[in-house]
Amino acid sequence: MSKPQTYAIIGTGALGGLYGGLLARHGFEVHFLANSDVDHLREYGLKVESPLGDFHLEKIHVYSDPTEMPECDVTIVALKSTQNHLLERILPSTTGDSGVVLVLQNGLDVELDVVSIVGKERVLGGCCFLCSNKVAPGHVKHLDYGAIVFGEYRAEHYLKDPPGITSRATRIADDLCAAGIDAKATEDLLLTRWKKLMWNIPFNGLSVALDASTKEIMEDSDSVVLAETLIREVHGAAVALGVQVPEDWIQKQLDATSKMVPYDASMRLDYRSGRPMELDAIFKNPIEAAARVGHQLPCVSMLLRQLRFLDARQAKVKP
Amino acid sequence: MSKPQTYAIIGTGALGGLYGGLLARHGFEVHFLANSDVDHLREYGLKVESPLGDFHLEKIHVYSDPTEMPECDVTIVALKSTQNHLLERILPSTTGDSGVVLVLQNGLDVELDVVSIVGKERVLGGCCFLCSNKVAPGHVKHLDYGAIVFGEYRAEHYLKDPPGITSRATRIADDLCAAGIDAKATEDLLLTRWKKLMWNIPFNGLSVALDASTKEIMEDSDSVVLAETLIREVHGAAVALGVQVPEDWIQKQLDATSKMVPYDASMRLDYRSGRPMELDAIFKNPIEAAARVGHQLPCVSMLLRQLRFLDARQAKVKP
Repeated sequence: MSKPQTYAIIGTGALGGLYGGLLARHGFEVHFLANSDVDHLREYGLKVESPLGDFHLEKIHVYSDPTEMPECDVTIVALKSTQNHLLERILPSTTGDSGVVLVLQNGLDVELDVVSIVGKERVLGGCCFLCSNKVAPGHVKHLDYGAIVFGEYRAEHYLKDPPGITSRATRIADDLCAAGIDAKATEDLLLTRWKKLMWNIPFNGLSVALDASTKEIMEDSDSVVLAETLIREVHGAAVALGVQVPEDWIQKQLDATSKMVPYDASMRLDYRSGRPMELDAIFKNPIEAAARVGHQLPCVSMLLRQLRFLDARQAKVKP
Repeated sequence: MSKPQTYAIIGTGALGGLYGGLLARHGFEVHFLANSDVDHLREYGLKVESPLGDFHLEKIHVYSDPTEMPECDVTIVALKSTQNHLLERILPSTTGDSGVVLVLQNGLDVELDVVSIVGKERVLGGCCFLCSNKVAPGHVKHLDYGAIVFGEYRAEHYLKDPPGITSRATRIADDLCAAGIDAKATEDLLLTRWKKLMWNIPFNGLSVALDASTKEIMEDSDSVVLAETLIREVHGAAVALGVQVPEDWIQKQLDATSKMVPYDASMRLDYRSGRPMELDAIFKNPIEAAARVGHQLPCVSMLLRQLRFLDARQAKVKP
């Protein structure tokens, strides 16, 4: 049996703390890059509350300076995509000549920032279906869900040249599953991403533009039409790009959201906390991908401009 | 010379108080219907501050019960269009068998409520270009502008059968001008209305959706594109309906708004004060008029649904 893979976790927040913590608990060598709570993590370790079992890792490998991190087999990017400008300083250390990068971020083409640093042959991307919060320094509370669907990233030739499920993807999936994570490698990352965009674009966008929870959006006869209009527009873009999201996925998003407990979409949490919103990843990149095949998204574009106005105004009043 | 025309003013607010006050000051017989400040008006009269000269009418004919009002030659509707359900109880008294009604409201087809009460032969409509506030009971402060452009209202056959400038319209214009008001009768009310909609739809709508002044909207690179997109969409609808608003009216709206002093559009003032917004008059009616000739307004429709969501939420939390 070959040597177990080593992991670098970029961002020790609600997502990186949980998945990295689970890998470390299982016995993998895991190196965490942290920001504000690095001292706390060094002194007290990482605490995780989770339906998968509560645990406390008293001693973890944690860094504030990425250049001090060792080369790892797999680097998991668990930052918000609005922080991707930091990766240029981080990834060379953790990936060396042969390490691969798994980008666990929302949106579309978020992997391009990584491709420009490590090259297009070493990048995987994935979507997380996760409800988790960092409730205190070094303390993650995992509430529900937790699945990861990920696969090889191919920027341009994806549809002509499907990468399938590679052996390295299978090996990462095996590691994650061994650690207790519901992880699945897919041969069609774009399908996964567009399916998730069909939720993220309408509900993240409207939750900020209308200052509303998913429940409020689904219970008002006008906003529910807005949500459906946006979902249909995103679906049309996916189809125009050759991504075969089934038609009934539209209604499934509406039905599933109606049945959710009242929920604040992540973009609303970001906006309310004064953080920048992931507008490029979730809005601009899909709009531009569709535009490259001559397909327009008028309502999604309008929503993006409203969100940019709000984002810019908030950035202006910040200290 | 024939007997001077008598006037009924429905709504003694910033608009009705000013125009009715000017007519009364000039010597016309004017009957005011008032609501909250009727007692104050009875006791202390009507006070107007205006670039046209400050004045105080110590004694005016003022009513709280419309059935006590006399028949007048001209009834001027100076309510917000959201109050038009009240007209059924008001207009029969003030118009009798032959009085005409001049509807001074924003939007499109606001005259239809009046047509259904007095018949289509006795209705004129107009737009006011006015900056005026009611600053206290019985006290109107007229800040700037003040023009009225009005004309005969023809609901369906307008374009096939232009009414021209009728003698009754000329006579009303003469009265208003004699009273010091910059009033003009037009043979093309629809042109006037659509030109005004090209400002009202984008700037009233965005000011509420983005919670922003006209200055903020014009100074942000995203919201200014939103404004232009909406203006173009409204212009396209006008043209589809055969209303020949010149193409350069689009840029003129943008330029004029850039040069304005920071200004809160009336819909924003309504929303901030917890009053219902004139969504049917300014948004729904134009969208429906365009739809009848097969023309869609996707961005205007999206904005309307957002505004309705906000309107409904505000109505819910009101005591």
